[in-house]
Amino acid sequence: MLKEMLDNVRATTPLIHNITNYVTVNDCANTLLACGGAPIMSDDREEVEEITSICGGLNINIGTLNGNTIPSMFLAGKKANELSHPVLLDPVGAGASSLRTRTACKLMDEIHFTAIRGNISEIKTLALGSGSTKGVDADVADVITRENIKDGVRFAKELSAKTNAVVAITGAIDIVANSSTAYAIYNGHPILSKITGSGCMLSAMTTAYLTANPTQPLTAVLAAVCAMGLCGELAFAHLGAQEGNSTFRNKLIDQIYCLTGDLLESGARYELQ
Amino acid sequence: MLKEMLDNVRATTPLIHNITNYVTVNDCANTLLACGGAPIMSDDREEVEEITSICGGLNINIGTLNGNTIPSMFLAGKKANELSHPVLLDPVGAGASSLRTRTACKLMDEIHFTAIRGNISEIKTLALGSGSTKGVDADVADVITRENIKDGVRFAKELSAKTNAVVAITGAIDIVANSSTAYAIYNGHPILSKITGSGCMLSAMTTAYLTANPTQPLTAVLAAVCAMGLCGELAFAHLGAQEGNSTFRNKLIDQIYCLTGDLLESGARYELQ
Amino acid sequence: MLKEMLDNVRATTPLIHNITNYVTVNDCANTLLACGGAPIMSDDREEVEEITSICGGLNINIGTLNGNTIPSMFLAGKKANELSHPVLLDPVGAGASSLRTRTACKLMDEIHFTAIRGNISEIKTLALGSGSTKGVDADVADVITRENIKDGVRFAKELSAKTNAVVAITGAIDIVANSSTAYAIYNGHPILSKITGSGCMLSAMTTAYLTANPTQPLTAVLAAVCAMGLCGELAFAHLGAQEGNSTFRNKLIDQIYCLTGDLLESGARYELQ
Repeated sequence: MLKEMLDNVRATTPLIHNITNYVTVNDCANTLLACGGAPIMSDDREEVEEITSICGGLNINIGTLNGNTIPSMFLAGKKANELSHPVLLDPVGAGASSLRTRTACKLMDEIHFTAIRGNISEIKTLALGSGSTKGVDADVADVITRENIKDGVRFAKELSAKTNAVVAITGAIDIVANSSTAYAIYNGHPILSKITGSGCMLSAMTTAYLTANPTQPLTAVLAAVCAMGLCGELAFAHLGAQEGNSTFRNKLIDQIYCLTGDLLESGARYELQ
Repeated sequence: MLKEMLDNVRATTPLIHNITNYVTVNDCANTLLACGGAPIMSDDREEVEEITSICGGLNINIGTLNGNTIPSMFLAGKKANELSHPVLLDPVGAGASSLRTRTACKLMDEIHFTAIRGNISEIKTLALGSGSTKGVDADVADVITRENIKDGVRFAKELSAKTNAVVAITGAIDIVANSSTAYAIYNGHPILSKITGSGCMLSAMTTAYLTANPTQPLTAVLAAVCAMGLCGELAFAHLGAQEGNSTFRNKLIDQIYCLTGDLLESGARYELQ
Repeated sequence: MLKEMLDNVRATTPLIHNITNYVTVNDCANTLLACGGAPIMSDDREEVEEITSICGGLNINIGTLNGNTIPSMFLAGKKANELSHPVLLDPVGAGASSLRTRTACKLMDEIHFTAIRGNISEIKTLALGSGSTKGVDADVADVITRENIKDGVRFAKELSAKTNAVVAITGAIDIVANSSTAYAIYNGHPILSKITGSGCMLSAMTTAYLTANPTQPLTAVLAAVCAMGLCGELAFAHLGAQEGNSTFRNKLIDQIYCLTGDLLESGARYELQ
């Protein structure tokens, strides 16, 4: 079923509006092109509603949020909701400052997100801090392991039930869940944490998968998360002597570019929880 | 004649002021260094006039325009006009939002551009929307082919006559024209559209060529457009198995770095229209 | 002694807050990860004090300063001083505009920097322009050579005495000095000037070295400067035919990723002045 998700991206070239940070924006754009989508970056309040309107999906990443871009996130998110476009939230650094926590929670309260993707610490911050997520039990460990995975799955399902968003918690083991169904994903490689932006790139790509597969958001997110992990494994396998994180970053995007639906189907390692 | 254009860039190291988007800014800077120029990026209104004054040319790219950078574009552009520095406009996304269209057209009305570079859709938007270009017949197809190239050439010449700018319309086939002379360029490779920023990089490089060749703007733009297309071909030819758009981007800049005047002269494929 | 500096970075993974330019920010983040640290980029005044508080060190780079980020530099710098975190200033382009010169000098007047890193022209601008550095004799040549190195050393020591910062002047020959001790470093390769951001990357990495070695700032800066130069040499040695500045940039970061304490110790070429 993952093959179909990727094939639909390549068949429809979804145009994704990104309001994202300036650290990894170039990698996000090239990742979107690599996976079969197309990027537009725009964050000025005077134009974000129009830009969102001509796109198919919206990716909101708060990585370098500021007084100019925060209002744009709300304007674009509300417009995307109006148009029933998929919207993804990447709450980068939620918990690291009150501005990030407050902004991420307010976005959750005012915008319906199709999917939320972050690490366990960021997602826990959302669960604890937002009016719309009040009552979610975030008593989960800070690293998801094979031992505590049931707790993570329960937490992700509960948060999904409260928010009506697919929840993707990424780390050494990833969890993708809606309120009733959850998957654990075992693809990936530790070197993914030695480049900046692997999470941002995944969020951008996930938005493309959601946009190309509007009726299957859970499977779309699962496919994108598997694809990024698998491409990380393949990219690492192609690293030569004296190559490090910078070459890995390039090979990661290259692998996303080269990835086929069949390869994704056969290389994905996940299980229903 | 193209050889001389490139050799003049390498001989004079033109310093280029870029007011450009944050998506592809790093690639633009490395492209300027690769071709033999030098970059400065600066977009705060308090300093752009001073920065433009110490540079040889100005590249204005509206890719992620906002309320802070738009006034800087006008200030820098007017200062560059005062100083008779070459100024290039890259109207990224003109037509995609009214802010972009309005800003691009107002820039055209208030600043004299030495050259304008965009895709056919962006350039048509300029022709339709600007006071200074009123009356240009923009009834041209949205893709320039060998069949409709005469229409594209007529349109580019007419726009150049109205604006007194060299007009570069880039796509699978590129057109470079002033009011009396036009060239079609056949260099390039489809993978150039699978990276973000090939247009932005070309605009930055073109500004360096214009600055190093102040008395021959048409030939300078022709040379830069041929150089980018040729380097795209060479970069693609060097791609190995399992390499994709990210490695292509690096090899493209590498080829610009390695390009010689002789190689440009022999590899350029263009014809007078 | 340099080996220990690097080993301490890898052992402690210092988290570095960067207020830096959008041109080279991605390279700075990947460089920090490559050397063994971890990056956070944040520049909004509403959060910079909190972000600095959760980090170990602060890197202030004025490369694309603007009206929004300048106040953030002061807020974060003062907070870092309060917390006794190492703070580094990279006065990119000081001297190129009055905004840059004024901002860099005011930062020097209001914040205590653990280290200052720039090229000779930028550092001279600081020495001439700042209240806190009044009286430093900046009558030094604009390029440091083996012939005039004594003048550069005297100037760097005098500036360090006035500011109580380690002063790093980088170029073909680098000087690292405090008020009593100075080193000349001979590592490096001319191609480092053909990529954008080698200085920015060094400043980010130096902040990580300072943070991991709080009691030895002079040796920490010396180690970082040697490491960057050595990695430049190694990266150039690994360049193949038809490779240029873009591949060099990737290989440079790769070499920082692969660098060991022993390799740094044996490859560093410096002498006490």
